[in-house]
Amino acid sequence: MSSTNKTSENTSDLWGGRFSEATDAFVQRFTASHEFDRKFAAEDIQGSLAHAAMLTHVGVLTEEEHTLIKDGLAQVALEIQEGRFEWRVEREDVHMNIEARLTEIIGEAGKKLHTGRSRNDQVATDIRLWLRSAISQVMDELTRLQRGIITLAAANTDTILPGFTHLQVAQPVTFGHHLLAWNEMLERDWSRFRDCRQRMNLCPLGSAALAGTTFPIDRDMTARSLGFDGPTRNSLDSVADRDFAIEFSAASALLMTHLSRMAEELIIWTSAQFNFVDIPDRFCTGSSIMPQKKNPDVPELVRGKTGRVNGHLMGLLTLMKSQPLAYNKDNQEDKEPIFDCAQTILDSVRAFADMIPALKPKPEHMRRAALMGFATATDLADYLVRAGLPFRDAHEVVGKAVAHCVALNCNLEELSLEVLQGFHHRIEADVFEVLSLEGSVAARDHIGGTAPKQVATAAVSALDRIDAR
Amino acid sequence: MSSTNKTSENTSDLWGGRFSEATDAFVQRFTASHEFDRKFAAEDIQGSLAHAAMLTHVGVLTEEEHTLIKDGLAQVALEIQEGRFEWRVEREDVHMNIEARLTEIIGEAGKKLHTGRSRNDQVATDIRLWLRSAISQVMDELTRLQRGIITLAAANTDTILPGFTHLQVAQPVTFGHHLLAWNEMLERDWSRFRDCRQRMNLCPLGSAALAGTTFPIDRDMTARSLGFDGPTRNSLDSVADRDFAIEFSAASALLMTHLSRMAEELIIWTSAQFNFVDIPDRFCTGSSIMPQKKNPDVPELVRGKTGRVNGHLMGLLTLMKSQPLAYNKDNQEDKEPIFDCAQTILDSVRAFADMIPALKPKPEHMRRAALMGFATATDLADYLVRAGLPFRDAHEVVGKAVAHCVALNCNLEELSLEVLQGFHHRIEADVFEVLSLEGSVAARDHIGGTAPKQVATAAVSALDRIDAR
Amino acid sequence: MSSTNKTSENTSDLWGGRFSEATDAFVQRFTASHEFDRKFAAEDIQGSLAHAAMLTHVGVLTEEEHTLIKDGLAQVALEIQEGRFEWRVEREDVHMNIEARLTEIIGEAGKKLHTGRSRNDQVATDIRLWLRSAISQVMDELTRLQRGIITLAAANTDTILPGFTHLQVAQPVTFGHHLLAWNEMLERDWSRFRDCRQRMNLCPLGSAALAGTTFPIDRDMTARSLGFDGPTRNSLDSVADRDFAIEFSAASALLMTHLSRMAEELIIWTSAQFNFVDIPDRFCTGSSIMPQKKNPDVPELVRGKTGRVNGHLMGLLTLMKSQPLAYNKDNQEDKEPIFDCAQTILDSVRAFADMIPALKPKPEHMRRAALMGFATATDLADYLVRAGLPFRDAHEVVGKAVAHCVALNCNLEELSLEVLQGFHHRIEADVFEVLSLEGSVAARDHIGGTAPKQVATAAVSALDRIDAR
Amino acid sequence: MSSTNKTSENTSDLWGGRFSEATDAFVQRFTASHEFDRKFAAEDIQGSLAHAAMLTHVGVLTEEEHTLIKDGLAQVALEIQEGRFEWRVEREDVHMNIEARLTEIIGEAGKKLHTGRSRNDQVATDIRLWLRSAISQVMDELTRLQRGIITLAAANTDTILPGFTHLQVAQPVTFGHHLLAWNEMLERDWSRFRDCRQRMNLCPLGSAALAGTTFPIDRDMTARSLGFDGPTRNSLDSVADRDFAIEFSAASALLMTHLSRMAEELIIWTSAQFNFVDIPDRFCTGSSIMPQKKNPDVPELVRGKTGRVNGHLMGLLTLMKSQPLAYNKDNQEDKEPIFDCAQTILDSVRAFADMIPALKPKPEHMRRAALMGFATATDLADYLVRAGLPFRDAHEVVGKAVAHCVALNCNLEELSLEVLQGFHHRIEADVFEVLSLEGSVAARDHIGGTAPKQVATAAVSALDRIDAR
Repeated sequence: MSSTNKTSENTSDLWGGRFSEATDAFVQRFTASHEFDRKFAAEDIQGSLAHAAMLTHVGVLTEEEHTLIKDGLAQVALEIQEGRFEWRVEREDVHMNIEARLTEIIGEAGKKLHTGRSRNDQVATDIRLWLRSAISQVMDELTRLQRGIITLAAANTDTILPGFTHLQVAQPVTFGHHLLAWNEMLERDWSRFRDCRQRMNLCPLGSAALAGTTFPIDRDMTARSLGFDGPTRNSLDSVADRDFAIEFSAASALLMTHLSRMAEELIIWTSAQFNFVDIPDRFCTGSSIMPQKKNPDVPELVRGKTGRVNGHLMGLLTLMKSQPLAYNKDNQEDKEPIFDCAQTILDSVRAFADMIPALKPKPEHMRRAALMGFATATDLADYLVRAGLPFRDAHEVVGKAVAHCVALNCNLEELSLEVLQGFHHRIEADVFEVLSLEGSVAARDHIGGTAPKQVATAAVSALDRIDAR
Repeated sequence: MSSTNKTSENTSDLWGGRFSEATDAFVQRFTASHEFDRKFAAEDIQGSLAHAAMLTHVGVLTEEEHTLIKDGLAQVALEIQEGRFEWRVEREDVHMNIEARLTEIIGEAGKKLHTGRSRNDQVATDIRLWLRSAISQVMDELTRLQRGIITLAAANTDTILPGFTHLQVAQPVTFGHHLLAWNEMLERDWSRFRDCRQRMNLCPLGSAALAGTTFPIDRDMTARSLGFDGPTRNSLDSVADRDFAIEFSAASALLMTHLSRMAEELIIWTSAQFNFVDIPDRFCTGSSIMPQKKNPDVPELVRGKTGRVNGHLMGLLTLMKSQPLAYNKDNQEDKEPIFDCAQTILDSVRAFADMIPALKPKPEHMRRAALMGFATATDLADYLVRAGLPFRDAHEVVGKAVAHCVALNCNLEELSLEVLQGFHHRIEADVFEVLSLEGSVAARDHIGGTAPKQVATAAVSALDRIDAR
Repeated sequence: MSSTNKTSENTSDLWGGRFSEATDAFVQRFTASHEFDRKFAAEDIQGSLAHAAMLTHVGVLTEEEHTLIKDGLAQVALEIQEGRFEWRVEREDVHMNIEARLTEIIGEAGKKLHTGRSRNDQVATDIRLWLRSAISQVMDELTRLQRGIITLAAANTDTILPGFTHLQVAQPVTFGHHLLAWNEMLERDWSRFRDCRQRMNLCPLGSAALAGTTFPIDRDMTARSLGFDGPTRNSLDSVADRDFAIEFSAASALLMTHLSRMAEELIIWTSAQFNFVDIPDRFCTGSSIMPQKKNPDVPELVRGKTGRVNGHLMGLLTLMKSQPLAYNKDNQEDKEPIFDCAQTILDSVRAFADMIPALKPKPEHMRRAALMGFATATDLADYLVRAGLPFRDAHEVVGKAVAHCVALNCNLEELSLEVLQGFHHRIEADVFEVLSLEGSVAARDHIGGTAPKQVATAAVSALDRIDAR
Repeated sequence: MSSTNKTSENTSDLWGGRFSEATDAFVQRFTASHEFDRKFAAEDIQGSLAHAAMLTHVGVLTEEEHTLIKDGLAQVALEIQEGRFEWRVEREDVHMNIEARLTEIIGEAGKKLHTGRSRNDQVATDIRLWLRSAISQVMDELTRLQRGIITLAAANTDTILPGFTHLQVAQPVTFGHHLLAWNEMLERDWSRFRDCRQRMNLCPLGSAALAGTTFPIDRDMTARSLGFDGPTRNSLDSVADRDFAIEFSAASALLMTHLSRMAEELIIWTSAQFNFVDIPDRFCTGSSIMPQKKNPDVPELVRGKTGRVNGHLMGLLTLMKSQPLAYNKDNQEDKEPIFDCAQTILDSVRAFADMIPALKPKPEHMRRAALMGFATATDLADYLVRAGLPFRDAHEVVGKAVAHCVALNCNLEELSLEVLQGFHHRIEADVFEVLSLEGSVAARDHIGGTAPKQVATAAVSALDRIDAR
């Protein structure tokens, strides 16, 4: 945490005409952004190329200058790629570093590149280009994860496990049905990223500092050449807006919330007490002290990473709260959270996309658990309803039968017909069918229900939707 | 904060068959939700009517029972509306209160209403119905606010005020242009609410507790009759999902962030030092001690309310983090934040929609401020670029001229041509045109630029987009 | 969500001398706070009594006026207590409502009460009085909860259950030891509330609007008579400061985080799969559809309520971010989060304080679980270290033995001495002692270790600390 | 964002006895922490040295082994310091990297170092050591900032500027008084960090994995030798607890909130419209496009950084919510937020501590602003109270006088005595004294008031408190 306040020699050379003293060296480091914004150096160059082509098209640059700039930027790109580029703190940020280096290479023409633009619209363009690409990667990886889940679901349409509410056994469901619930969450996530990507895909270039520029620019041209759907509509808004960062981190937070729920279930399911699935060793780690340990690190870590993404969202909302228009230095703080957010969700989705297809369900343990906890009590109540009881009364009858079983430490299907009839005379021998796990799941045979044939159909539809992306 | 642990007499009558002791009275109060979930009593009844009609259609209820239920629910609705309904804590929530009262009124048939459903899918349906309607109200009010802003903008396409970056005078812009920047933010908000509304508009009814039901229900029928686009696709997800609450509060937080930015500007603009606009007395309040005070309470309060909405978002994300499927009691905590969120944004948008059209701009103060701070320095640099200098060199030249003015405490246009030419010989007499405020704004004449004619066009387009909703 | 914009008749009577139009009726409702700030009506009156006594002492009020004010405020207090007080929206807040009513009752003297103070210092005083009392209640309830936990711990110093890391069986610990870990968390919480209470216990009265007052007030007198440690030191800070609200909600969020961890364990422990403890029926509720359900509602709800408290903290931080001094209307938004925060933690701690002493541990299930998962593997490694192996090598040896057991589906202690010696020749017959659960826990015999005698000592110390409060 | 899933050769060598396949290479990278936890390598070594000394003291290690370990760790420390240390991802974290390297250097003895400890208590110790030191640095820098503020205040005890509420001119205050309000905020921050530091200063070492260890360790000895106040009291809590991280980030968030308020004021004060202070050029930066710009970057950036710290707090609360005891992998996510939090607040406080003493107040602009906005209206009301009017009536009278001035566009003191007497006959010639700025501030002459002599005294006391630290 140390640094000196001594001043470097050439600070503020790029904007300092009106300044009477050089920037304090600590302030220089404190306010500089090149250590993190160099992450979108490629996008910065891409934007500059589009800007230069447009300036040439409208006659602000000559063809010769254009050629020099193109070649110079290509060299800068190469230097960066090969790690030879010398980043300088006194050049503050990625934009100034690249422009100053360009000018070193090509001379005068380099100084003309910034005509008709400002760092304010430049950075807004760069970050949108970068984020657009990151979102696409996330969407692709989500698709891969969803395919893995659906495939596993399709293979387990009739594997029975207990469905839980309140972590208490509720009713039997199929493993495939449970996995497709995960898929539904991710399906919504995917559509949120799609919406976010679309809403942000407008080009701020040409907004300049805040008011537009006096040069005869062609904003449609730059927008199109950078793959945007069009130019943004208001220059003040264009440099002040960070909605895309907040909407992206909000979509990310919700995605991580979903992954944390899946993670929680995997952690519970791999406990010795549940023991529903096995996670292959390659996704687990051990303990430095306890030789027997095999820990579900991947789901735990993903669950934990929910925190940082929620934090980024809250940080960005705090950042933008009550900022007057247009651009303020505060906005520089938008980048690190977005970068970390994107990396975190990409890694987390990838980890799950690798791991989930490799899960080994343990159907026998699942089944055993489903036999505990009176999972078919509701089926018995429904049975009584079909026999003519109002549902409320049927519920009361079955509640008493369960209390009886709790006292005897047995299951409902272990009671004799006679005993069952003691609770209600309309119970007949066919009751034992509804008390079976298979009978129970098969009976929930409607859209969205857990019946194996519904699950099989749902898995097919789910894949179809993904194929149609 | 006091309450007793004494037990009421009839607790747990509705689900307590298996229980050996009554609920603790404090626990009853602590876990009950009727005090807040009664807010969607109307939606609960609406859902029950659709459910009963469907049960009748598929033969689970008779026509007679259906008629009894319809009439009974109408009576319950009336009692609630007229404030005669007796809410009882031992009936826990809105669902049980209504069902139990229905049964008091119509007898046996009332006990049959809960056939094929659970409170889990019931509450998920109710809250979606309620929220769908709340979102529609918010969208309408947003439309009203946007119209007010655009109308004010259209009347101020050539009113000049300083544009700020870093709260330092940057370049002159028009007031209309600034207002349209506000409109852009709200335009995105509107589209986010639209997306959120659409994504949530699926009907969970029929998911029952978590696995679906054994009755031959018709989920398409209930979905359609309640105005949903269709039924949800997975019963486990349907009762576990609270995405709509989080997406809604995220959209709300972003909206409030925008309002907080507008509020901040209004507060700064109404300070004695800026004095750009006047807020009519009826939107302000005074001080109990300082007789001269007239405070911009409405923008301040809206700015402050950003906090509670951010808080609700964070609360909901925390709530859902790492919850295993399917329903857990935690989910009961989703309601109060959504209610408060909806009320807060509706009130805040309404307050702005009332106030903004009543703002009185003070063009002479705006203009005077625009003349300070060298707002046209960039125009001078652009002038030099057109005269052949590279932009970087032009920037340097102007920077020095500004430093000179700072030392002399004068403005650029107050320098004589001779002195200006001392900074660069290519400066000619026509320079004073670009140094004028009118010249500066008129020159930014491209899509999104601040030129009056661009702003006029933009206002028309903005209204067109709203008319097309 | 409806209300009109019609103006009431007497709005702004209390501060409106300079205003030319009445407050808009919607704005009046939107900006009024009496619906929630009436919560500290008693503290407002308490503060006014102290202020009036001081004004009399310094000669600003006469004894007669003082008597009138005391009697008048007593009557107001009674009216409020008996629900007869008529709260009026045009009187905005608790302060104006009480003062205006006082003046109705006692005439002229009532108008003198506000001499030398402002609502700004008044509300800062009221909220501190209210919060100070709320914190004391929370501290008392925390003490009760801690006693309950320690008592249960003291009764279970040698009840063995598996200790978990990563929700995988790690090492055997005692139930008492586990419970005392809970107590440690709460002990820190208690000390944080104590610190918070102490830091806020200074009296803002006399700061007036922001700069102090021209009357010869005695701030020490009012501070002392209201039980504060002294007056605050800077009038601007006094009316602008909301640290106490943030520090309180931060301490609350951490407390709820702890309760959420305890809640999570209770929920897992009461699952059919773990089955370590039983929560009495009176703390649970059932299902409207599934007759067999008994759900751990109390821990679930407490876990869920963590969200709202985190949300309040974030809301308050957002609220105060970048507010210029001194008082802004935004600050009105501090009250509802504090109120809800206090009620939430008080209820949650109370619910746990009632429930935890009533928990029924199931030692036989705990023990059975501790025998699974190779809980004593570390003990075997330690055994080998004592036999001369470096720890890392011992760890490796035991890891292989565990892998062998996994393959054979048996436990370490089920291996014969011969087989064990196959993994390392220094294993002798005494190894089976260290593989026993009792041997394992007894061996961790140092401060903070899980040995029964350490736990017994720790329980005694824990109670001593509480007795010393 | 690319990495492969190929497996490295020696993964899981350190704990993998029971594992049947190597860790997936992506999982290895995803779960490894050495890239960030190497930050406390020095503390890790410090802790190992204390642990080794204690193990030797109790006879678990020989003196020879102890010497080897000490020398080996010294070499490791040197390699790290000189950047020669080879960090390896397959060694996961700082602990394993150091231990494995130690063993390479000194052989067998290195494998004995981990006796009686686990990474769980090791990391808990390391992070506390690191954080303790970071807090001390922050406290020192806070002290430096406070000295700078108080010194500036002491030099401006009678410099008058308008005090604002609602950003509207309220009453005149002195600049010194305003600065001391800042100091009060920071004084509370300092005390919160002190409390946090004290609460966390207990040593977890000896808690081992979660239950303590079977070796005869001396926890008091390690605690003392590492400068802790004593050992922690419960081993489960010791490895599960992350309170210190949350309490630290909560204190940090509140500190940043304060800095954001100061920043907001500086930004407003340096606007051309307020123009109350000048920030020296060396703390400002310019614009790439607008040659005249001088932006208050430091306060803006500090204001913006409030977001990331709020975000970290929220992230950590989310992280710990509902984690069952004891250690879970999630906890690994505690480090990056703490590191960033500490760096952010240290940099921000440093930037302010450098900048604030260099601020140049502009008393003439401040004074001019104080003359606007009827800042002494309250003084006139107080004057009338002293003349016998009840405060409420006096308030009304002055309100009307202000309305009159607003209509005439003049100030109160510009009205003639005659006109003033028209508002109330008890106004005499001496009224003009109370309407003067000097008279107004001098009259607020009590503890915490803005009278110059009170401010001078307050500045002395403030310094005394700091000297007494």
